[in-house]
Amino acid sequence: MDVIVQKYGGSSVATPEKILKVADTLIKKKNEGKDVVVVVSAMGDTTDDLIKLSSAVSSNPNKREMDVLLSTGEMVSASLLSMALINKGYDAVSYTAYQIQIKTSGGHGKSLIEDIDVTRVKESLEEGKIVVVAGFQGINEECDITTLGRGGSDTSAVALAVKLNGKCEIYTDVDGIYSCDPRKYKDAKKLDVIDYEEMLELASLGAQVMNSRSVELAEKYGIEVYVGLSCSDIKGTVIRGIKNMNLESKPVTGIATSDDDVAITIKNLNSDINILCELFEKIGEKKINIDMISQTTPINGMVNVSFTVPKGEFKDAMLIVKDYVSEKSITIDENITKFSLVGIGMKSTSGVAAKLFRIFNDAEIDVKMITTSEIRITCAIKQEDKVKALHMAAKEFNL
Amino acid sequence: MDVIVQKYGGSSVATPEKILKVADTLIKKKNEGKDVVVVVSAMGDTTDDLIKLSSAVSSNPNKREMDVLLSTGEMVSASLLSMALINKGYDAVSYTAYQIQIKTSGGHGKSLIEDIDVTRVKESLEEGKIVVVAGFQGINEECDITTLGRGGSDTSAVALAVKLNGKCEIYTDVDGIYSCDPRKYKDAKKLDVIDYEEMLELASLGAQVMNSRSVELAEKYGIEVYVGLSCSDIKGTVIRGIKNMNLESKPVTGIATSDDDVAITIKNLNSDINILCELFEKIGEKKINIDMISQTTPINGMVNVSFTVPKGEFKDAMLIVKDYVSEKSITIDENITKFSLVGIGMKSTSGVAAKLFRIFNDAEIDVKMITTSEIRITCAIKQEDKVKALHMAAKEFNL
Repeated sequence: MDVIVQKYGGSSVATPEKILKVADTLIKKKNEGKDVVVVVSAMGDTTDDLIKLSSAVSSNPNKREMDVLLSTGEMVSASLLSMALINKGYDAVSYTAYQIQIKTSGGHGKSLIEDIDVTRVKESLEEGKIVVVAGFQGINEECDITTLGRGGSDTSAVALAVKLNGKCEIYTDVDGIYSCDPRKYKDAKKLDVIDYEEMLELASLGAQVMNSRSVELAEKYGIEVYVGLSCSDIKGTVIRGIKNMNLESKPVTGIATSDDDVAITIKNLNSDINILCELFEKIGEKKINIDMISQTTPINGMVNVSFTVPKGEFKDAMLIVKDYVSEKSITIDENITKFSLVGIGMKSTSGVAAKLFRIFNDAEIDVKMITTSEIRITCAIKQEDKVKALHMAAKEFNL
Repeated sequence: MDVIVQKYGGSSVATPEKILKVADTLIKKKNEGKDVVVVVSAMGDTTDDLIKLSSAVSSNPNKREMDVLLSTGEMVSASLLSMALINKGYDAVSYTAYQIQIKTSGGHGKSLIEDIDVTRVKESLEEGKIVVVAGFQGINEECDITTLGRGGSDTSAVALAVKLNGKCEIYTDVDGIYSCDPRKYKDAKKLDVIDYEEMLELASLGAQVMNSRSVELAEKYGIEVYVGLSCSDIKGTVIRGIKNMNLESKPVTGIATSDDDVAITIKNLNSDINILCELFEKIGEKKINIDMISQTTPINGMVNVSFTVPKGEFKDAMLIVKDYVSEKSITIDENITKFSLVGIGMKSTSGVAAKLFRIFNDAEIDVKMITTSEIRITCAIKQEDKVKALHMAAKEFNL
């Protein structure tokens, strides 16, 4: 079998007309002799509309029931796409999560795919059918409906490609992965290829093209993922493992920025590591993601500690922090942009950080916090410096 | 267990506000110590909206996919009602057809319930939960989603009551079963009790309060069904077996009228019964329901045969008829009303037909065709005579 798994996002199937267009694109692939599997998201704003409905009947919708509700969005788009294909004279069949046993674990609203039973999918492909799978959904051990979280249809598609040993193509409303956000920097360049790790850093930093878990899954099983514009011939970006960097390759592949965090600083904290441990454990228990952490060298056994939390989780985080330290030793900074350079070339190229700091120095951009990984440097800067920093770094690193 | 199965139709759950009202009604029952199971239809016009969507992508939507699409409507209302109950502090859980294995046979869009595995329902009831079941849907042997046809949620509710050995209450937007349509005859009386057979005759004749199959199922298992107005204290109608008629009981319980048929008459047909057999077999194969049939006595081996078919199936029926007889021997009459008196009292009371014909004679109402069953007399009359016939018969038989 020569299987290709295509995924179409909500904007690509937002209207009946768009569904018919997707059907035509699939038929072209089918006519090329491919075994075509297609994963669809819910039409346009369906998911938001369903969430609104739930808010109208419940101030805190039960998570199990929320997943039943949300899963209907993908059933609608999958059945419509299948009908459209059949009406155009091509045999097709839609499958829901329970029909192909997309088994998940990890709780409602954020489930992880454990396994998929692709027996029925393979049988249908062998019968010449185009197989349409409702994305974003799974079932748990109790046979209850689960969902994979926002962007979960990407994961559905990659998991199916893994199980069917096929190629994976993610179609969306952007035409590929860019070195930095083209809305913020008009000269941003589209990448032909990007490494899994780079994509992961960019995805987790707010470049919302691909869901991170789907990239992790693709990396784990070595599945190449193509990301491109729906129903178009414009060439997109391939996500794959880049083992050997050639000498001329650039150290920095992309820049991501995010204004979605708040920095909390605690002054004059006893430098006992146990206190920090406990504090961060408590915050972790509440599923609040701490991102950047920096700590000064102890002076007289006291340290200053800063860390960032997502804006939406800030209130909850503060409740915990206030249990540990008095309010007057806490400083809040809501005016931060996380500014990140990403590139697997950084592993072998020194001096990237130095170059970045030189730029910031020359442009009088204050750096409030710094964290790094093997392939990423992130600085917290003032939000008003973001555009300047983006332009200067993009120019310096030729992005 | 003291199980009560309530069913709420689409108009009763059309908005979040109405869903919250239904939740309150269920909670009242729960607080009375009942084990509450509730079957819901899709919200308001959802089903029609989904059908419209399907028409936008396909001129002839595939039936399997149509069932996937339509089944989402009931999943939405079931999950919302469950959320609403939980938010009000009552434990609840929604189940889809596959979760409680509502096994069906008989093809997509018109499936019949074969069995339900109520193990999970019973467990949930024992845990004190209110169980919300998505109506109208089932699964077939291939684990594909099926639907039970319009009004199928009534059947879901009765089948659950059978399996749970409980009472069944159907809540809708009318406050009970009337002797005749109160919109057409303002003095129509609401019935306290109606026999299964009477209800079946009325249901199949177009009194759209209850789905016929659900009444058949209730009769088969001797389940009492209450029909009443949603979220109201107005007393409705009980459908049950009436074995012993008391002496004063009325011979006629109700009148139903329907303008939805066309009469086809074939003149000078060879009176060979084989021809009629073959013709009606062919029509039956196309799933066209022939209702009234009348035939004149043969003259010179030739007969005139008239029969009625639903308007929607008239074209298909004509295609078949034209294969058997020349067009000039066919007469079409679109101006007919089927006018039916129904009552199990007719079994023991003679003269009902005579009284009806006397009324028609006095009022100069032409009777075009007549058919009867043990508990029903149906006449085809001119549509313009309908109101007059209804008023005179209702008065005569004290309805």
